[in-house]
Amino acid sequence: MPPPENPLTPARILEATEDVLRRYGPAKATVVDVARALGVSHGSVYRHFATKAALREAVTERWLDREHDELSAIADGNGPAEDRLRRWLAALFAAKRRKAGDDPELFATFLELARENSGTVARYLTTLLKQLATIVASGVADGEFAARDAAATARALWDATARFHDPMYASEWADPEIDADFTEVCELLLRGLRA
Amino acid sequence: MPPPENPLTPARILEATEDVLRRYGPAKATVVDVARALGVSHGSVYRHFATKAALREAVTERWLDREHDELSAIADGNGPAEDRLRRWLAALFAAKRRKAGDDPELFATFLELARENSGTVARYLTTLLKQLATIVASGVADGEFAARDAAATARALWDATARFHDPMYASEWADPEIDADFTEVCELLLRGLRA
Repeated sequence: MPPPENPLTPARILEATEDVLRRYGPAKATVVDVARALGVSHGSVYRHFATKAALREAVTERWLDREHDELSAIADGNGPAEDRLRRWLAALFAAKRRKAGDDPELFATFLELARENSGTVARYLTTLLKQLATIVASGVADGEFAARDAAATARALWDATARFHDPMYASEWADPEIDADFTEVCELLLRGLRA
Repeated sequence: MPPPENPLTPARILEATEDVLRRYGPAKATVVDVARALGVSHGSVYRHFATKAALREAVTERWLDREHDELSAIADGNGPAEDRLRRWLAALFAAKRRKAGDDPELFATFLELARENSGTVARYLTTLLKQLATIVASGVADGEFAARDAAATARALWDATARFHDPMYASEWADPEIDADFTEVCELLLRGLRA
């Protein structure tokens, strides 16, 4: 028997799951909906993802990963650390706003996972904190920044910008003053970092 | 007819409401429970507070006001602005933690009101931002701090310390690392303020 033209891969399942989540929302979407969209049995889906929770984690991870690439390019780039940090924080805020506005159903899934303290969200946080620490450490190495401990400073930068990346604040991201508030916080933090 | 020995005042109603909220929680407590605790009809309670929502706002306001006094004494006190700002932020965080831990039912009421964007919570925020701006402005006047706009800087300090006062983060306030995280954020902000 020849292999099917379009074999059922994890990537295809995740793509269909994103569509189903967008259409039905995280509360109503089921594995049966995903299987139906793919024209396969739900057993076939379960062969790749053992539970509905595992599938939901994987789809969120894939969605968050797209954001990492842009941010990691900034973190690992050249130029003054202050400029990279400013661009990194602005890119993170822009990505979150875009997701909350353009992709509200997947954003709601992410918010639910964040509330459940899932492994996916913990890994995502670890990745972003490492990127922040890379920028801080390079600024210290170049004599631009003063910081005893790059990891602790990265955590402080993350905490201090929570209003501009924590999904709990998404409803405030359309406020007309939010951009000025963001700039004010960033500039205060950058002044605090300068050597 | 002589006046009753214990006239029904707003203060007595608010005290009874606090007790009722502590006992039944914000979801179950009713105006009838408050009236019963006072030995009066619910009509008597409604003569002082027109709706259940008005009563709930008033009890939250009274509860938040107790916190203002301690903080305003620090804001209006003497000594270096840096020291006052550090103490003010620490006192706010301590008060929030105490309330979340010791008074979870009233804290839940406050959290509900905060989500509804109530007038009480907006007034509370305005009062606290004014206190922060007072400290910043006095630091600028003494040549300790550099800040173009004390009100905008106060807002930035408030936003940057959200993890340590926003009730949405209450579940993290028992984490063993939270005190170190708080200190790291405060010291970064204070370095950013220095002239």
